[in-house]
Amino acid sequence: MIGRLNHVAIVVPDLEAASATYRATLGANVSAAVDLPEHGVTTVFVELPNTKIELLHPLGEGSPIAKFLSQNASGGIHHICYEVDDILAARDKLKAEGLRVLGDGEPKIGAHGKPVLFLHPKDLFGTLVELEQA
Amino acid sequence: MIGRLNHVAIVVPDLEAASATYRATLGANVSAAVDLPEHGVTTVFVELPNTKIELLHPLGEGSPIAKFLSQNASGGIHHICYEVDDILAARDKLKAEGLRVLGDGEPKIGAHGKPVLFLHPKDLFGTLVELEQA
Repeated sequence: MIGRLNHVAIVVPDLEAASATYRATLGANVSAAVDLPEHGVTTVFVELPNTKIELLHPLGEGSPIAKFLSQNASGGIHHICYEVDDILAARDKLKAEGLRVLGDGEPKIGAHGKPVLFLHPKDLFGTLVELEQA
Repeated sequence: MIGRLNHVAIVVPDLEAASATYRATLGANVSAAVDLPEHGVTTVFVELPNTKIELLHPLGEGSPIAKFLSQNASGGIHHICYEVDDILAARDKLKAEGLRVLGDGEPKIGAHGKPVLFLHPKDLFGTLVELEQA
């Protein structure tokens, strides 16, 4: 069911510093910062040949990653995202097998304009997993 | 400098359960478990179309991931691995820019039989990064 690893999301305390490190020190192709107010994050994409890293920083009040950053002041890996062909079929299969879908269980339009869901990390060995309909 | 994302490593408290979940529930291709006593881990590879997930569990006394598991009893993402063409050139550039290389700074032969180094997570926004000469 799961397909490509769409991205690894890393929350960082300073997006400019992280962008500069990935660009100048690690030598990667790094996008400009993009505010996504409807998601409560500012994001920078690090393009790798086979996938991407998303550097995230809280945006505005009530950002969904504010608590993570307060608990991980240096930053840290926040989630990984797997692609699926059909997010509703994936959701129904996973729920039938006992995995918990976060929120109300309905896919939302994610940062890439595609339907996404998040799965409870306690059901996947401490890993917060996003599913994105590719 | 950094190339492909070689893998995401996830430490899990129960390798059989995690293998079963990735195989049967998430529908991925999952390898048999492989003991790597010289690395103090048992590993299972989850093959995705563009990269892989490595499920890790401590093996033997003094495993380098035992402390992580004791601090993250449910498991969690342990590190990510970027490929580089020339690990010594990468190391020297990164050290010159102030990044700390773990251990004695000399590449070791990693779990895939290739030279690897680890970079200090405090220098990379809370993310433990492995470099592997591809």
